[in-house]
Amino acid sequence: MTTTPDGRPRRMLTLGAVLQGAGGHIAGWRHPLSPPDGELDLAHHIRVAQTLERGTFDALFIADVVAISGTDLDALHRTARSVRFEPLTLLAALSTVTERIGLVGTASTTYNEPFHVARKFASLDHLSAGRAGWNAVTSVLPQEAANFGRDAHLEHGLRYRRAEEFVEVVRELWDSFDDGAVRRDIAAGRYYDPTGLRTPHHRGEHFAVRGPLSISRPPQGHPVIFQAGSSEAGKDFAARYGEVVFTGQGTLAGAQRFYADVKARAAAHGRNPDHLLVWPILAPIVGDTEAAARARRDELLELIHDDVARRLVQDTVGDVDLSGYPLDGPLPEVGETNRSRSRSEQMLDLARRENLTIRGLARRSSGGGMITGTPETIADHVEEWFTGRGADGFNVGFPYLPGAAEDFVDQVVPELRRRGLFRESYTETTLRGHLGLPRPVAIARRDDLTHPSEPLADEPSRAGSR
Amino acid sequence: MTTTPDGRPRRMLTLGAVLQGAGGHIAGWRHPLSPPDGELDLAHHIRVAQTLERGTFDALFIADVVAISGTDLDALHRTARSVRFEPLTLLAALSTVTERIGLVGTASTTYNEPFHVARKFASLDHLSAGRAGWNAVTSVLPQEAANFGRDAHLEHGLRYRRAEEFVEVVRELWDSFDDGAVRRDIAAGRYYDPTGLRTPHHRGEHFAVRGPLSISRPPQGHPVIFQAGSSEAGKDFAARYGEVVFTGQGTLAGAQRFYADVKARAAAHGRNPDHLLVWPILAPIVGDTEAAARARRDELLELIHDDVARRLVQDTVGDVDLSGYPLDGPLPEVGETNRSRSRSEQMLDLARRENLTIRGLARRSSGGGMITGTPETIADHVEEWFTGRGADGFNVGFPYLPGAAEDFVDQVVPELRRRGLFRESYTETTLRGHLGLPRPVAIARRDDLTHPSEPLADEPSRAGSR
Ligand SMILES: Cc1cc2nc3c(=O)[nH]c(=O)nc-3n(C[C@H](O)[C@H](O)[C@H](O)COP(=O)(O)O)c2cc1C
Ligand SMILES: Cc1cc2nc3c(=O)[nH]c(=O)nc-3n(C[C@H](O)[C@H](O)[C@H](O)COP(=O)(O)O)c2cc1C
Repeated sequence: MTTTPDGRPRRMLTLGAVLQGAGGHIAGWRHPLSPPDGELDLAHHIRVAQTLERGTFDALFIADVVAISGTDLDALHRTARSVRFEPLTLLAALSTVTERIGLVGTASTTYNEPFHVARKFASLDHLSAGRAGWNAVTSVLPQEAANFGRDAHLEHGLRYRRAEEFVEVVRELWDSFDDGAVRRDIAAGRYYDPTGLRTPHHRGEHFAVRGPLSISRPPQGHPVIFQAGSSEAGKDFAARYGEVVFTGQGTLAGAQRFYADVKARAAAHGRNPDHLLVWPILAPIVGDTEAAARARRDELLELIHDDVARRLVQDTVGDVDLSGYPLDGPLPEVGETNRSRSRSEQMLDLARRENLTIRGLARRSSGGGMITGTPETIADHVEEWFTGRGADGFNVGFPYLPGAAEDFVDQVVPELRRRGLFRESYTETTLRGHLGLPRPVAIARRDDLTHPSEPLADEPSRAGSR
Repeated sequence: MTTTPDGRPRRMLTLGAVLQGAGGHIAGWRHPLSPPDGELDLAHHIRVAQTLERGTFDALFIADVVAISGTDLDALHRTARSVRFEPLTLLAALSTVTERIGLVGTASTTYNEPFHVARKFASLDHLSAGRAGWNAVTSVLPQEAANFGRDAHLEHGLRYRRAEEFVEVVRELWDSFDDGAVRRDIAAGRYYDPTGLRTPHHRGEHFAVRGPLSISRPPQGHPVIFQAGSSEAGKDFAARYGEVVFTGQGTLAGAQRFYADVKARAAAHGRNPDHLLVWPILAPIVGDTEAAARARRDELLELIHDDVARRLVQDTVGDVDLSGYPLDGPLPEVGETNRSRSRSEQMLDLARRENLTIRGLARRSSGGGMITGTPETIADHVEEWFTGRGADGFNVGFPYLPGAAEDFVDQVVPELRRRGLFRESYTETTLRGHLGLPRPVAIARRDDLTHPSEPLADEPSRAGSR
């Protein structure tokens, strides 16, 4: 950590990267600098993870939905979105071939049980010696509901109430054993100190979980909690439980508003706002010149198949049927849309303002927050958002992998280091350490836990025999 | 594969080993040849896995319960049973540091969702290039129920009906993509062939799962299904779905009966009985002489703490309170027991017949199927059970790790090889290959799947926006 002119330690920029098969862009898998089979190629994932570690990234992050992410199979089969590793197994595999980088995986609070989630992330934290993070999501796709016996999602507010209770239970489970309770005293024949084991006996609105968790307290106390809600309920959830908050922001002003908003909410919940980091998405394409970077981007956009382009626009602006319209012609007038209003209106506005064709809009929409530049101009962008309090760091979504990550690590990271914004090398060993987040103190003991060996409703003997 | 005198290929012995922290014996963690912190020490697990791979084992196996496995915390804190890695994360980590050995994990059909289980094992199968196996259990401990919002287990028969539907759904999900459907044709922009994607649309008694699974068909087609039921329902389940069946058997005659029984059941279900392997448990302690091996065993048994000994006997013979009785005195008369009758009666019989003290019975009961011998006599035992059709192989539970595994690999495995019973080196790369099991053909297409892009009840747009 460097110091400010008045001698106080300076907060460093933090960086995560999305590990996503052949890359974050919908046509990334067709890019010449991506392996087409990146999605299920472990060696490719190892290469990317080790590249990011060379770049002293704080974490790599695996997004996830528990479904194939698309209903329109005509377009879906032209993207690599349909096939992926399950995140926790992939992260566990990567824990053995990396040493310092944080390993962050997504798990839904709507389609999981707290016991399983607590256990998996505690296990990953032990496997990786304190590098695990959990991106807690409430899930948005109806295809996910359909994989778990439900016709539709729980209502949005209810999903977040369930999520809150879910996180509470998970944290209690992580605290089942006190730090140091598992002493392994061979001579005395004491594997753990029984006064250091706490059984949660949780009974709430959504969950009844007795516990305890069958694993020592995680090295980090709790794996780091990541979150990406953007609704009111989502931001409030982030403010209460999130330690790193992802957000998609198109402008610095928007990022600053979001930043101030969630930090204020965290403070209102009695938290130190420095213990919640805001990470907007950054999707960089680097070139030696601005023109070279733009050419790289255009080369990628060229690879969007016509069917995918049409589907992207339909998904963006609403379920109009665009099949009759030429891709290189203008967008037809669309009426009332049934899509998320703000996003679709923004896109329609953009199309009108800039006179975009259907293909043009597809390219714009697929790009998300893609920015092009030289190492210097990309570092300028990062610095501006960071010092301008629009970001504590970034969640970098490389459009194609490993190419774009290698360029970033070899060209942009050195520039960020030169400016004193980013670490020269890892100084800590855990994800919490990298991020400057405190290690949580275990939840205080509860009164109802004075009889830890109370019998259960049913004895093991009976259940186990017939 | 060697050949029999008449030139037909000879079925080889197959071997799995339980990977269980510091070892399978309850006092294993106190053994001088075990690290006391083996349970959460990845380096230790890697060492054991690599030792087993040196011994060309077919698989390593991780047992699991989704709870702390014991109610009596006084005894529990004196054992290492309370703390362990979550199996799938550990197996995924081991997949990167091993090359050939099968990786078998336990997952309960009672406390999981088919989509998650299908996905995790498919992911492990891809990570390990075809080495995954799933031990499908229905769970027996009431503590597990209490971690998932239930006061007691589902009734036994119902658990197995749920298990059957569970496995059916999992297999359908594994078959979501046809072999080779994910072609990644960059030039044509076709990631997969849409005619090769099947959406299960499962609706049954216990589950409604739309699918498809978001991962290519596993390299093995289906990960290998392991099973360990011993009730009528359990054996029937094994006969229908199991490919390797674990069983605890004390005598060759008992093993032969079990072997003949499940093979006949498999045949009755229209299966080739050779495609279901029976693996009794084997818990060997090897010494240069019989006496040396017995001394090693006794050294281990000495390490059982008094509280643990008392609890073992209480758990075995019924919930009598033994606290008033000296451990080195005789077992008091116990009346009607509420434990599994056959096991408790066997143990009571044994105690009376051999005039065992409480401690003596505890040692006997903790030993399970522990056998002591020289490399030759242990190989004799293996050979006798194998050629006598009591076993197609063994699930070896080493009492302490890594010591007992190293002895076995260095001394017993060479003897088994000398006798032509066991492979000299791996000849195959997948777990199915090692075990001589066929690769499942994908489930035939269903009629209701002709419209794979039919809309869902709810459109993504609505659920995702507010
Ligand atoms: C960078 C980023 C990553 C996200 N990753 C996931 C993910 O992996 N899985 C998921 O279901 N949702 C993911 N989301 C969606 C959010 O969890 C959230 O549902 C969305 O931002 C809408 O906010 P709301 O739930 O508060 O309405 C992500 C969002 C962002 C900005
Ligand atoms: C070698 C072996 C390993 C087993 N592993 C597990 C396990 O990991 N988890 C579990 O819940 N049960 C395990 N069991 C228990 C069985 O799954 C099964 O519940 C038990 O044998 C009783 O049979 P039943 O369910 O047919 O009554 C195991 C049994 C054996 C013999």
